[in-house]
Amino acid sequence: MAHSAGQLHIGLLGCGTIGSGVFHLIRKNAAGLADAAGREMVLARILVKELEEPRPFPVDRTRMTTDQSEVLDDEEIDIYIELMGGIDPALSYALKVLGRGKPLVTANKELIARHGRELMEAAAAGGTVIRFEAAVGGGIPLIRPMEESLGGDNVEKIMGIVNGTTNYVLTRMSAEGITYEKALSEAQKLGYAEADPTADVSAGDAASKMAILCSIAFKAGFTADQVYREGIQKVSPDDIENARELGYAVKLLAIAERDGGGVSARVHPTMVPLDHPLASITGNFNAIFVMGESVGDLMFYGQGAGSLPTATAILGDVVDISRNPGKQAAARRSYWSKPGEVKPIEDVETRFYTVLRVVDRPGVLAKIAGVFGDNSVSLESVVQKGIGDSAQIVLITHKVVERNFQSALKGLKELEVVLEIPSVIRVESGRE
Amino acid sequence: MAHSAGQLHIGLLGCGTIGSGVFHLIRKNAAGLADAAGREMVLARILVKELEEPRPFPVDRTRMTTDQSEVLDDEEIDIYIELMGGIDPALSYALKVLGRGKPLVTANKELIARHGRELMEAAAAGGTVIRFEAAVGGGIPLIRPMEESLGGDNVEKIMGIVNGTTNYVLTRMSAEGITYEKALSEAQKLGYAEADPTADVSAGDAASKMAILCSIAFKAGFTADQVYREGIQKVSPDDIENARELGYAVKLLAIAERDGGGVSARVHPTMVPLDHPLASITGNFNAIFVMGESVGDLMFYGQGAGSLPTATAILGDVVDISRNPGKQAAARRSYWSKPGEVKPIEDVETRFYTVLRVVDRPGVLAKIAGVFGDNSVSLESVVQKGIGDSAQIVLITHKVVERNFQSALKGLKELEVVLEIPSVIRVESGRE
Repeated sequence: MAHSAGQLHIGLLGCGTIGSGVFHLIRKNAAGLADAAGREMVLARILVKELEEPRPFPVDRTRMTTDQSEVLDDEEIDIYIELMGGIDPALSYALKVLGRGKPLVTANKELIARHGRELMEAAAAGGTVIRFEAAVGGGIPLIRPMEESLGGDNVEKIMGIVNGTTNYVLTRMSAEGITYEKALSEAQKLGYAEADPTADVSAGDAASKMAILCSIAFKAGFTADQVYREGIQKVSPDDIENARELGYAVKLLAIAERDGGGVSARVHPTMVPLDHPLASITGNFNAIFVMGESVGDLMFYGQGAGSLPTATAILGDVVDISRNPGKQAAARRSYWSKPGEVKPIEDVETRFYTVLRVVDRPGVLAKIAGVFGDNSVSLESVVQKGIGDSAQIVLITHKVVERNFQSALKGLKELEVVLEIPSVIRVESGRE
Repeated sequence: MAHSAGQLHIGLLGCGTIGSGVFHLIRKNAAGLADAAGREMVLARILVKELEEPRPFPVDRTRMTTDQSEVLDDEEIDIYIELMGGIDPALSYALKVLGRGKPLVTANKELIARHGRELMEAAAAGGTVIRFEAAVGGGIPLIRPMEESLGGDNVEKIMGIVNGTTNYVLTRMSAEGITYEKALSEAQKLGYAEADPTADVSAGDAASKMAILCSIAFKAGFTADQVYREGIQKVSPDDIENARELGYAVKLLAIAERDGGGVSARVHPTMVPLDHPLASITGNFNAIFVMGESVGDLMFYGQGAGSLPTATAILGDVVDISRNPGKQAAARRSYWSKPGEVKPIEDVETRFYTVLRVVDRPGVLAKIAGVFGDNSVSLESVVQKGIGDSAQIVLITHKVVERNFQSALKGLKELEVVLEIPSVIRVESGRE
């Protein structure tokens, strides 16, 4: 393809849901994008696995190839967009184009969360940049504001809903009182959850995003496997109802904060006060709270997934690279080479909600309180519900070190009067 | 002052609440800012009106001068920050430094909203840039995400709470059932409202911010005087109570949207559904909803004012300019020279809430409904409250052209059975 100086030639690696959205927007918003980027955008070559594949937007077949070298080795391409997902072969392709000094834009959260250090170093060595606004929060401008607008501030805490599938499931459970299984099946029917929902519901997806946000916020290289995670599979309609009575909503939150010398980083179902802005984020939306030392509380909200929102974020990165070829983002990301240190979950302090199914007899509460006291766990509220076989104690602790709480749980399980501990959910006040 | 190549010399014009915050952060976060900007930041000269003045953070007296030429003509200064507020002399100082090719960062919303075109042209002519992230939404990253991350998208609508003072007053009225006067006086005691609160409560401040957002979103030069405005002074505790019963919160919203060939731009008290994210923004926070054609709904939330949040936004702009001196923001803002066209408020379509105090007698509703019908206003809900002298009709219309609604109001006032029309508030569904 002839290369005009006024054109920006793009090589697209992977063309499924998001890739076809990128193709669609480049065609539809050609004038606006050219104005923003300073050059006409041309989607020169598209690497695909299958030429024929269902895509939400039609894509020009003549640009497609299944031969990687036709795209990766094309001298005329100015910038690459990687949308294949997964690690292999995305990582080797990414390293190859960065090594050739070509800028790379990617939405691949797993790639950044597992191989961020390698990629940042490859970009720096190649004298080029890698950008990944779309990897966290889909269409929400988040990475760049954190890197640039908050460049002079110190982030103290991040707390966010970064997975739309689980937020949809929890929203439906809350609105309709239905079970996790029923809400998930509904989400699958609507296309909000995949046939194999494991990565979403078990919090693996959110953990990857958390690792990326931690790296940027705390200026070190964090990886997904450093992020403690619990999925939403065990959250019950009773938990959601109890939470509401206590003034909370149940959300899958990704939480990271500076804590002494280290950083705590975790994703788990969390009770958040009903008047906190995160409690009102419903459906498949994402929202990320960022607390800066000087700037105070910020929140970024929007579509965390979807073809066009994600494609918009990708094109924002392309525009920025086109406009600011000298931008030394790579240099500024040298911190990624310093391994991030995460505090073990056993040392993290938080509050806990828990439910104990107990024998309905006098003196039970005293025994339970005794176990908590022996483990230095102090209780904020205790409510006894039901009678006879369904007698339950619903309680919330004050802030306690995880190790002590787990030790108390172990002690409770050994009590004859405690029949079962169906629920344990962490509680955030969000502003402490 | 000796000028090292590794230093960024800053000239500060004005040093009150925000300026002293800038001084404080440059000292406190010196290492982080140097890392982000690529150069050590040095606050070289500070122009003040009075050397002695109460400031929230202490400022080094030796850098201060009351002589403008000592700062404006200093060849060693690389970048200026303007925090004087108002038009005179801020405008002439701004034009002077831009004319000398020096980048300018300002938090002065009035300056941009009234003289944006002149300033953008001066920056382009001087081959430099003007940045104003802090002028709207204080510490919230908003201008840059709209300009850059959404560079390839088309903004369809903006709807936001851009004035913290009025949001605080409305939040207190709503929480405590108190009057506007009482809530305002409380805000003044807490320092959330100024002794002369006119600019805030009459929506002038919000109108300036709306003009800036319109310019960026709709790519033309809009000025504050083009923005229709109504303040919050007439909002009563009854309105807030009625709104809640109908499922709404009352907020001072700045709203702009593409509407046919033009743009509608307005700031007024607005009823917004309780489940809309804007309804849950309380206290003196700001939140701006941006609806993009491709990206969908985004919301940006944070501290809209205050010394350190605003100073953080200013330093984010300084960092960006230092890192990307070649950034062609000025070129991209050539659209500011094209005058923005605003649709007259009479032609804007919206829904209305209104309250009529009426004579309590059979047939009244028929007469009122007749007037609405004659003016092509259709009603969504009608509730009759009270009896005898306090009989009231509370109603919400379907979407109607303002002109027709005003004509209906005129007709209603002429009816003998209508004693008074105490309230008219526009209603947004937010997602239509």
